Amino acid sequence: MATLGLIEYDRATPEVRAVYDDIMATRKTDYINNFWKALAHDPATLKRTWESIKQIMAPGALDALTKEMVYLAVSVSNQCGYCIASHTAAARKAGMTDAMFAELMAVVGMANESNRLVSGYQVEIDEKFKK
Amino acid sequence: MATLGLIEYDRATPEVRAVYDDIMATRKTDYINNFWKALAHDPATLKRTWESIKQIMAPGALDALTKEMVYLAVSVSNQCGYCIASHTAAARKAGMTDAMFAELMAVVGMANESNRLVSGYQVEIDEKFKK
Amino acid sequence: MATLGLIEYDRATPEVRAVYDDIMATRKTDYINNFWKALAHDPATLKRTWESIKQIMAPGALDALTKEMVYLAVSVSNQCGYCIASHTAAARKAGMTDAMFAELMAVVGMANESNRLVSGYQVEIDEKFKK
Amino acid sequence: MATLGLIEYDRATPEVRAVYDDIMATRKTDYINNFWKALAHDPATLKRTWESIKQIMAPGALDALTKEMVYLAVSVSNQCGYCIASHTAAARKAGMTDAMFAELMAVVGMANESNRLVSGYQVEIDEKFKK
Amino acid sequence: MATLGLIEYDRATPEVRAVYDDIMATRKTDYINNFWKALAHDPATLKRTWESIKQIMAPGALDALTKEMVYLAVSVSNQCGYCIASHTAAARKAGMTDAMFAELMAVVGMANESNRLVSGYQVEIDEKFKK
Amino acid sequence: MATLGLIEYDRATPEVRAVYDDIMATRKTDYINNFWKALAHDPATLKRTWESIKQIMAPGALDALTKEMVYLAVSVSNQCGYCIASHTAAARKAGMTDAMFAELMAVVGMANESNRLVSGYQVEIDEKFKK
Repeated sequence: MATLGLIEYDRATPEVRAVYDDIMATRKTDYINNFWKALAHDPATLKRTWESIKQIMAPGALDALTKEMVYLAVSVSNQCGYCIASHTAAARKAGMTDAMFAELMAVVGMANESNRLVSGYQVEIDEKFKK
Repeated sequence: MATLGLIEYDRATPEVRAVYDDIMATRKTDYINNFWKALAHDPATLKRTWESIKQIMAPGALDALTKEMVYLAVSVSNQCGYCIASHTAAARKAGMTDAMFAELMAVVGMANESNRLVSGYQVEIDEKFKK
Repeated sequence: MATLGLIEYDRATPEVRAVYDDIMATRKTDYINNFWKALAHDPATLKRTWESIKQIMAPGALDALTKEMVYLAVSVSNQCGYCIASHTAAARKAGMTDAMFAELMAVVGMANESNRLVSGYQVEIDEKFKK
Repeated sequence: MATLGLIEYDRATPEVRAVYDDIMATRKTDYINNFWKALAHDPATLKRTWESIKQIMAPGALDALTKEMVYLAVSVSNQCGYCIASHTAAARKAGMTDAMFAELMAVVGMANESNRLVSGYQVEIDEKFKK
Repeated sequence: MATLGLIEYDRATPEVRAVYDDIMATRKTDYINNFWKALAHDPATLKRTWESIKQIMAPGALDALTKEMVYLAVSVSNQCGYCIASHTAAARKAGMTDAMFAELMAVVGMANESNRLVSGYQVEIDEKFKK
Repeated sequence: MATLGLIEYDRATPEVRAVYDDIMATRKTDYINNFWKALAHDPATLKRTWESIKQIMAPGALDALTKEMVYLAVSVSNQCGYCIASHTAAARKAGMTDAMFAELMAVVGMANESNRLVSGYQVEIDEKFKK
C-alpha cells in the first residue's frame, strides 16, 4: 500500500482538486493515476511535479511520442516497475506501436550493455568528442 | 589508459580489420572510436557488439535520430561519461539540434525524479496499467 | 520466497540466537525482520552485518532520526522495495512525521533529477569545489 | 567541456540574469555554479529547476543542513562526481562537520550494501511493513 | 502481465521455434523461460539475444559456474527481481552451493558499499593503478 | 582531491597504523591504497571496512580470484572509476588473465542488457523459479 495512502477526488482539498482538474483537462481523460493520488498528501510537491511534467512533456523541438518513449526508456533502465507500467500505457496512447516498443527496448538493452563495456575497459574519451 | 590498451588499424589482425572496415563503411567515416579499439583485444566481443549495434541502430519502426537520442538518454541516466560524450556527437550527426538536446535532458531529468517519487511513496500499479 | 528460506528463533543455532537477542535488546522490540532471518543461513554475514549496522546507526555526530532518513533516501534512490518498506517503518519509529517524509522524498527526487542534468550537460567541476 | 558551453552573467539574456540574480540573493553569494551556467542555454529548464530547488531546499519540516546531507547522500549513491563536489561544499556551508560527513558516508555505504543483500536473498517484505 | 504477452511453442512461428529448439538442446531441458517467450514478439531480438548469450556463457577462459555467478552478482547489484530468480536457479544448476551463494552475496554487498565510500570521499585513483 | 585528504603512515595515529600494518601483512605488500588513506579520517569506519573486506575476500567456498572478479564485475556495473582501476589490479594479482578479463566483461555487459529487456517487457517470474 502507498506509504501515506491515496487521496481520491472527493476527499481532496480545493488545492489538490485544482491539480487533478488540470491533469484531466490536459490529458483529456477522467482518470487520475495512483501516482498523483499518492503525491496529493504533499500539495506543494503535487503541484510542482505536475506543472514541471506538463511543461516538459508538451510537444516542442521533440514531439510527444518521442518524449514518452524517452521517459519509458529511462524508467526501464532504472527498473522502476510502476513507471514502466504507466509510461508504456502513456507511450501507446501517444502512438507507440508494438514494433516501436520492441526497437525501443533493443536500444535500451544495448545502451546498458555498452555503457558497462566502456567502463570496464576503462576507455578514454576520444579527443574529438571533447569538442 | 584503457585496461588492455587500444589497437590501431595498422596493428590489427585481419579479423579485427574486417570489423573496422565495416564500421567505417556503415558510418561513412574514416574514424574508429576508442571503444572499438579497446574491444579489439577480444575479437569475438568486438564482432558481436558491432553487429548487434549495427542491427539495432538501423532505421526501422524508429528512425536513426530517435534511436540515438534514446541511447544518449540511457547513457545520461547511467552517468557514463564516455558514452555521453560519444553519443552526444552521434546524435548531433544524426540531426539533434541544441533545442532537441535541451528537451531530451529535461525529460531524462524528470523521469529520474519521478521514478524515485513513485518508489519512495510505494505507489501500487493501477489496475488499468496491468492490462 | 527467500532464496534460502527464513530461520526462526526456535530453529536457530546458539550463534544466530545471540545475534537475534542483541537485535531485540538494542532495538527494544521482540520482532526480528525477515532480513535477519534470511541472512541467518550465513552466520558470519549475519553477525558482521548486524554489528556494522549497530555501530553505524548509533547516534553520534548525527542523530538516529537523521541516519534513518538518509538510509531511506538511499533505498529510495536505489528503488529497493524491501528496504523502502522496512526503513520507512524504522524512520517513523525514530520520529519521522508525514511532513518530514514528504520533504525527504522531494529532496531525493530532485537530487536524482539534477544528478542527470549535470551529467547530461557534461558540466565540469568548478575550480572552487576542487578545494 | 560542457556540451553547450557555459553562459556568463555578462553574456546572459535578461531572463537568465533574473535567475542568476535570484540564486545569488537567495544563497547570499556572488558565485554562480557551472551547473546553472550550463542550463542557461535552456532558460525554461534553468528557471524551473532553480525554482524547484529553491522551494525544496528551503527549511521546513527538515532543516537546511539535513536536506543538504540527504542531497549529498543520493549523489554519492548515484556516483555523480560533479554533484558530490558541489553538494559537499554546500553541506559544509550549511554546517556539516568532518565528523558528520564521515558518519553520513558510513550510512550511505551500509545502505548500499544491505539493499543488495536483501535483493540477493530475495527477502519478502514483512507483513507488518505493509501496514 | 508481460507487455506483449508470452508466445508458447505451439503458437510460435518457425523462426521462433528454431530459437526455442536451440535453447532446449543447448541447455538440455524442455523448459523455455518466460523471458524468451516475451522476447519472441521481436524475432530479431530473440535470435540476437539468444545467440549472444549462448556465445558469452559458454565455458572458455572462465568456467560456466563462474559466469553464472557473475551474471547473478550483476543482477543483484541492479536489483532485477526476475533476473535474480532465474539466475539463482541457473547458477545452482551449474553447481553453486548454498555456501558459495552466501559468499557471493557477501562480496556483492561489500562491493556496493565500498564503491560508494570511494565516491563519497572523492578518492583519486592511485598512480600505480593507472598503469 | 579526496574530500578530507589522505593520511600517510607517518602521520597516522597508532590505531590507524595498526590497520595499515594488517593490510600490508595480509596482502603481502608495502603499499596502502588511497582508499584506506582517505578512510583513515574515520578510524572506526577504516577498521570496520578493512575487517569486513578481509573476512569477505578470504578464500572459502569461493577462491580469491573468483571473489576479485565478482568485485570487479559489480564495480563495472556501478561504473565506479576508482574501484574498476583498483580491482582490475587486484584481480590480475590474483591470477586474472587478459582472456579471463575479456570474458568477464562480456558477461557483465550481457547481464546489464538482459536485466533491462526483462524489466522493459515486464516479464513475470516463472513459477518454477519461485521454488
